Amino acid sequence: MRIAVINPNTTASMTQRITAAARAVAGRDTEIVGRQPGNGPEAIEGPFDGALSVPGLLKEIVAAERDGADAHIIACFDDTGLDAARAIATKPVIGIGEASFHAVSLVAHSFCVVTTLSRSAPVIEDNIHRYGFGHRCRRVFATDIPVLELENPQSGAFERISDFIRQGVAMGAEGVSLGCAGMAEFALDLQRSHGIPVVDGVSAAVGLAETLVRCGLTTSKSGVWASPTRLHVLEKFS
Amino acid sequence: MRIAVINPNTTASMTQRITAAARAVAGRDTEIVGRQPGNGPEAIEGPFDGALSVPGLLKEIVAAERDGADAHIIACFDDTGLDAARAIATKPVIGIGEASFHAVSLVAHSFCVVTTLSRSAPVIEDNIHRYGFGHRCRRVFATDIPVLELENPQSGAFERISDFIRQGVAMGAEGVSLGCAGMAEFALDLQRSHGIPVVDGVSAAVGLAETLVRCGLTTSKSGVWASPTRLHVLEKFS
Amino acid sequence: MRIAVINPNTTASMTQRITAAARAVAGRDTEIVGRQPGNGPEAIEGPFDGALSVPGLLKEIVAAERDGADAHIIACFDDTGLDAARAIATKPVIGIGEASFHAVSLVAHSFCVVTTLSRSAPVIEDNIHRYGFGHRCRRVFATDIPVLELENPQSGAFERISDFIRQGVAMGAEGVSLGCAGMAEFALDLQRSHGIPVVDGVSAAVGLAETLVRCGLTTSKSGVWASPTRLHVLEKFS
Amino acid sequence: MRIAVINPNTTASMTQRITAAARAVAGRDTEIVGRQPGNGPEAIEGPFDGALSVPGLLKEIVAAERDGADAHIIACFDDTGLDAARAIATKPVIGIGEASFHAVSLVAHSFCVVTTLSRSAPVIEDNIHRYGFGHRCRRVFATDIPVLELENPQSGAFERISDFIRQGVAMGAEGVSLGCAGMAEFALDLQRSHGIPVVDGVSAAVGLAETLVRCGLTTSKSGVWASPTRLHVLEKFS
Amino acid sequence: MRIAVINPNTTASMTQRITAAARAVAGRDTEIVGRQPGNGPEAIEGPFDGALSVPGLLKEIVAAERDGADAHIIACFDDTGLDAARAIATKPVIGIGEASFHAVSLVAHSFCVVTTLSRSAPVIEDNIHRYGFGHRCRRVFATDIPVLELENPQSGAFERISDFIRQGVAMGAEGVSLGCAGMAEFALDLQRSHGIPVVDGVSAAVGLAETLVRCGLTTSKSGVWASPTRLHVLEKFS
Amino acid sequence: MRIAVINPNTTASMTQRITAAARAVAGRDTEIVGRQPGNGPEAIEGPFDGALSVPGLLKEIVAAERDGADAHIIACFDDTGLDAARAIATKPVIGIGEASFHAVSLVAHSFCVVTTLSRSAPVIEDNIHRYGFGHRCRRVFATDIPVLELENPQSGAFERISDFIRQGVAMGAEGVSLGCAGMAEFALDLQRSHGIPVVDGVSAAVGLAETLVRCGLTTSKSGVWASPTRLHVLEKFS
Repeated sequence: MRIAVINPNTTASMTQRITAAARAVAGRDTEIVGRQPGNGPEAIEGPFDGALSVPGLLKEIVAAERDGADAHIIACFDDTGLDAARAIATKPVIGIGEASFHAVSLVAHSFCVVTTLSRSAPVIEDNIHRYGFGHRCRRVFATDIPVLELENPQSGAFERISDFIRQGVAMGAEGVSLGCAGMAEFALDLQRSHGIPVVDGVSAAVGLAETLVRCGLTTSKSGVWASPTRLHVLEKFS
Repeated sequence: MRIAVINPNTTASMTQRITAAARAVAGRDTEIVGRQPGNGPEAIEGPFDGALSVPGLLKEIVAAERDGADAHIIACFDDTGLDAARAIATKPVIGIGEASFHAVSLVAHSFCVVTTLSRSAPVIEDNIHRYGFGHRCRRVFATDIPVLELENPQSGAFERISDFIRQGVAMGAEGVSLGCAGMAEFALDLQRSHGIPVVDGVSAAVGLAETLVRCGLTTSKSGVWASPTRLHVLEKFS
Repeated sequence: MRIAVINPNTTASMTQRITAAARAVAGRDTEIVGRQPGNGPEAIEGPFDGALSVPGLLKEIVAAERDGADAHIIACFDDTGLDAARAIATKPVIGIGEASFHAVSLVAHSFCVVTTLSRSAPVIEDNIHRYGFGHRCRRVFATDIPVLELENPQSGAFERISDFIRQGVAMGAEGVSLGCAGMAEFALDLQRSHGIPVVDGVSAAVGLAETLVRCGLTTSKSGVWASPTRLHVLEKFS
Repeated sequence: MRIAVINPNTTASMTQRITAAARAVAGRDTEIVGRQPGNGPEAIEGPFDGALSVPGLLKEIVAAERDGADAHIIACFDDTGLDAARAIATKPVIGIGEASFHAVSLVAHSFCVVTTLSRSAPVIEDNIHRYGFGHRCRRVFATDIPVLELENPQSGAFERISDFIRQGVAMGAEGVSLGCAGMAEFALDLQRSHGIPVVDGVSAAVGLAETLVRCGLTTSKSGVWASPTRLHVLEKFS
Repeated sequence: MRIAVINPNTTASMTQRITAAARAVAGRDTEIVGRQPGNGPEAIEGPFDGALSVPGLLKEIVAAERDGADAHIIACFDDTGLDAARAIATKPVIGIGEASFHAVSLVAHSFCVVTTLSRSAPVIEDNIHRYGFGHRCRRVFATDIPVLELENPQSGAFERISDFIRQGVAMGAEGVSLGCAGMAEFALDLQRSHGIPVVDGVSAAVGLAETLVRCGLTTSKSGVWASPTRLHVLEKFS
Repeated sequence: MRIAVINPNTTASMTQRITAAARAVAGRDTEIVGRQPGNGPEAIEGPFDGALSVPGLLKEIVAAERDGADAHIIACFDDTGLDAARAIATKPVIGIGEASFHAVSLVAHSFCVVTTLSRSAPVIEDNIHRYGFGHRCRRVFATDIPVLELENPQSGAFERISDFIRQGVAMGAEGVSLGCAGMAEFALDLQRSHGIPVVDGVSAAVGLAETLVRCGLTTSKSGVWASPTRLHVLEKFS
C-alpha cells in the first residue's frame, strides 16, 4: 500500500526527517511518499500558521490521491486541517497528534505531552479535550524551543524534553507523547532513558493508517466529512 | 466605535443582509462596516469551505484594522477561522456562533439550534462542546435548506425552522439559536410565534463586541492568540 | 434604556461604587439605577449570607420593574438568587459572576479568578462548573481580604491580587476575572500592569444587559424561570 | 439519636406525611422530629418558592439544634437551601434529593426521576449534574400534577408516575427516584408493580443521616460551609 | 438484620480488624458476619490481585446468602468484583470505596483520598471518575506503605497519612477518604487532629447497607446486574 | 511478529472464527496464534461471566509470552480483564472493544455500537465513557441474540443488526462498531449495504497491536500496570 505523509509546512529538511521516521516503522508492503506544499508557512507555530497551511495541504491531498495513495498522514502535531482533509479525501486521513494520543493511551494509563512552543500548548489541549483524552493527560509542557531549532544539537532540546518528562512522571504520567513531528528521532532514546513509553506521532500514524487500509475502512461520507461541492475553490489557490 | 462585520463567504447579497442585521441593533455611536473576501467559497457548508474561506477572511481582518475597526465579527455560524483571526487582530474578534450560544444561555436554561445543512451540524456540536455549552444544548437540527436558498420565499424555510423549534421545545429547549447568518430576519417572527427567545447570532455578536470595546478588553496576546511572526505568508494569498 | 443594578447587600458605599462602575461603561442612551435591599446582610460571604440576601434582592427586582427597568443586574459575584430573580422578573437578569466568565472567555483561552474569601471560592467554582466554563478556568484564588476591606488602601488588596494573577499566569491563565463587585476599580490598573485582559463583572454585565435589550431578548418563561404563582409570599418579607 | 426532618414548605399535612415516612424506616434508637417553618410558601414549585422558603428553613435548623437534633434532613426534593443550612448547622444536613440519587445509584446502574412540575425538572437536572450523577440519569420526567394534589386519589398520580417509569425503563433506566417528598407512600407499590428499585428520598435521607451520626461525621467547617459570622441577620426574618 | 462483610483477601488479621470496625458502627439490631475467601491473594495491590480475588469473593457472596445475609459489603477500597457480586447476589452489595466517596461528599465540598500503594491510585481515580465524584476529588495520594504493614506501628503510617492530609487541605480538600480498609482505626484520631471529616469506608458501608435494607431496596435485576445463567462456572473454582 | 489472540471464553468454534478474522487482516510478517482458556464460561454475557473468565485468560497470557508472543489481543468486546492482563504481560495488550472505538473514531465523527445482549450494553457504555469516547457514541444497541446464536443463519442476526444501524444513522451516527467478536464476518457486508464504515474489533486490534510492536512501544510498568508481586496466586487456578 502507498501512504502519503504530508508535512504541511514548507521546510524541506523537516519533510525529509518525517519521511524517514515514517519509513522506519512502515510494513514491508508499505510505500511511504513524503510531500509538502509549494507555498505556505515554513513552520506551524500557533493557529495563524496552522490556518494558512491548509490550502497547500489540501492541494497535496488531491495530488496524493491522483498518485494512488491509499491513506494520508498530516504530519503536524496540531492536526491542522484534519476535518477539511477528511472531507476532500476519499481515502482515510490521520493526524499525527491524534495518532499519538491513541497510541499512548494504549500503553499508559496517564500521559503528558512535551511540545515546542507555549502558544501551541492550548491548541493541543483543545484537541485532546475534543478527542476525549482529557482525563488521561496530566499536562501539556512546552520547551519553547522553536520547531526549526530542534535539529540543532546546540539547542539542548533533548535535555529540556527530559526535564519535562521528569516533571510529568512526578504528576503521575506513565507515558509521553512527543508533541512535534521534529522530535521523532528523540523518541527511542528518551524511552530508554526514562523507562516509560515515549510515542512519536509520525510512527503511530503510519500504523494506524495501515490498520485502516487493511481493515477496509475509510472516512464516512455520510456526515460532516461529506465530499465538498465547491472543489473549484481550491484551484484558485497557488 | 467602528465594528467590522466580515462575511467570510463571497456572496454579496448575504453580506448586505448580515450588515443590515448588525446595524439594526448597533448602538447610536457604533458604525457597522460590512466586508467580504475577494476570493473564496460562495457559501460555507462544511469544513472544506470553512478552511478555504480563512485566508480571505484574515486579509479582511488586516484591512479592517487599517481602516480603524475597534472590533471584528466573523459572520459565519461555524466560527470559521476564529483562532487565526484572534491571533492576527489587535482588536477583539467575536464569532456569531459563539455569540449566539452566550446570549441564548443568558435567557434560556436549555436551548436548541436550527441550522442549514446536516453536514454542518457536527461542526456546530463540536464548537458547543468546546465552548462549554454542551449541557445546555438539547439538539442541533438541520433543515437541509442550503444557505443561499434561505432568501428564497419558496424554500419554505420559515415553516421548516418552526417545525424543528417545536421538536426542540418538546425535548425541553426553552430558547433557540438560529444557526446561520442568513436566518437573521426570521428571528423576531419566530420569537413571537413560539413565545420563547430566538437568538440571531449577528445581533448578539454586535452587542458582545460593543461590550468588550466599552470595557477596554481585547484578546490576550500572552498565549495561543499571540501575534504571528510570519505575517508575510498571508500576503502570498490573493 | 434603564438598567437596574442591584447590590444584594446593604452596604451603601458598595452600592455607590458599583453604580459608578456601571455608569462608566454604559452606552449614551442607558440610564443606570443603583439599588440595594432595605434589610439583609451587609456583605455576602458564603452561602448563608447569599441565601438571606435573596428576599430583599427579589423585592428590589419587583420595585425596579415598577420603575420601568428594562434589565436587571445582580451585583454579587456569587450570582446569588439568580434563578429566583429570573423567575420573578419579566425583563432579563444578569449576574455579574456569569457576565465576567462570558466576557473573559471571549478574550482569553484560559483564565483565573481572584476573589475575596476562601469560603466563597467553592461557590464560584460550582457556578463556573454549572455554566460550562470549568475547562477554561485554571484556578479560583482567594485573597482572604474581606469585601468591606477592599476600599481600605491599607488592606494591600491591589498587591495581593497582583500576586495571585502572577500565579495564575504561571498556570497558563491568559486573562483574569476579578471575583468581587468591590474590585471593579482595580481592573484597568491590573490590566495595564500585567498586560493581559482583566475583567470586572459589573462592566461586563452592563454590556450583556444592553445586548439582550437591543436584541429584544428576555428570559424564557416556558420552563424553570416561569412566573411564580405565589407572589404573595414575597410581600410578607420586610 | 434525634433527627430533625424539616419540611421547608408550610403545609402541615405534608409535614405529617413526611414525618411518617421517615419514622417508618428509622432505626429503633432514632427519634424523628418533624418540623416546618412558620412562614413561607405552601409548596415549593420552582426556584422562586425555593428561595423564599430558605429563611424559614434556616430558623428551623437553629431551633432543631437547640432541641438537641443530631442531624437534619431538608425534605424538599430540590434540596433548597442545602448549602446555607450546612453553613449554619453544627450537625450534618442531608437533602432528600441528594439522598435519593445516592441511594438509587447503589442499586441501579442507570435511573430516571419522576417529579411533579415541569418547571422543577431543570432544578433537579442541575442538582444531578452538580452532584456528579449526570451520567447515571436517563431522564427527569414531570407528571405536571402539583405537589398538593398528590394526596388526592382523583389526581391519577399513581398511574401517571407508572407511565413515566415505563418510558424510563425503555430508555434503559434500571431504577427510579421519586422526585417529591409527597410521593413517598407510592414507593413500595411502584417497586412491586415495576419490579425495579423505586427510591423515596425521605427514607434514603434517614438512613444516610443515621450513617453519618454513627460514623461520627459532620459537615466540614474548613471551607464553603464555615459557620457564618452574621447570624444576627437571620433573627430579622419572622 | 445480618450484614456480611467480605474481605476479599486471605489475610485473617485483616478480616478481624475490618469486622471490628464494622461492628463499632452497626445498629443494635444489626449482626455483622466477617468473611474471607479460602484461596486468593493475601493483599490486593493493583488490578492483578484484584482480578484474582474475585472468584473467591463470589463464593463468599453465595455462602453468605445461604447463611441469611441481608446485605453484603466488599471490604476492599478498589471495589474489586463489585459488578459481578451485584449480578450474583439477590441482596444489595456495597463496596467500601464507593461508600467512602458517597459519605465524604455529604460532609465535605471537596475531598482527598489517602491510599496505600501508588499502583492502586489510578484504580481509585478510575472508580471516582466512573461513579461521578471526579469534580469533588482534589487528589488521590499514595503513602507507599503496603497494606499489611499498616498494622505495624513502626511503619510510621499515621504520620505519613497526616502529611498527605495537610497537602490535600492546602489544595482545597475539606474532607478525607481513607483509601484502604486497613486504615479504619486511624480515622477518628486523624479527624480530631486535622479538624475535618475523615471517612473510613467500612463504617460508611455499614450505614449504607443498613439504609438500603431498611428502605426495602435491592439491586436491580433488569439490566447489567441480571442474575447470571452460568452459575455452574463458579463451582469449578476452589 | 507473533500476536496471541485470546478468546476468553471456552467455545472452540468462536476461537476459530476470531482467529480467522485476525488472520484476514494481519500483515505478511505477522503470525496469529489463537488461544482460549481450558476452564471458564462458554460465553461472556455480563459482568459475572466476565469476572470468571479472567483467571483462565491470564494463564493464556502467561503461556503466550512463554511461546514468544510479541503482543496480546483480548477478543471479548467487554475488554474483560484488560487491566490485570496489562499488569501481568510484558508485551502490549489490546482489547477488541477499545480497538474498535479507537478505529471507528478515526473514520466517523459519531458512531453507534450494536452488541448482543442488553445486559452487556451498560458494560460497554461504561468502557466507552472511561476511555473518553462518550461524546462520540450516539447509542449502544443490543440485538438480544445470544453470542453463540450468531453463527446460526436462522437467528436473523444480520437483519437485526441492520435495523439498529438504520436507527443509529437516524440519530446521527456516521459509523458503526460491531459489539461482539462473533459479528466479525458481517462487517464487510454491512459496510457495503449501509455505505458507512463498519468496524470489527478483532481486525482493528490486530492493526493496533502491529502498530505498537513496530513502534517499539509496550505497556508502562511505572504505574497501575506494574508487574504483580504475587504471581504464585495465578498458579492455584486450574
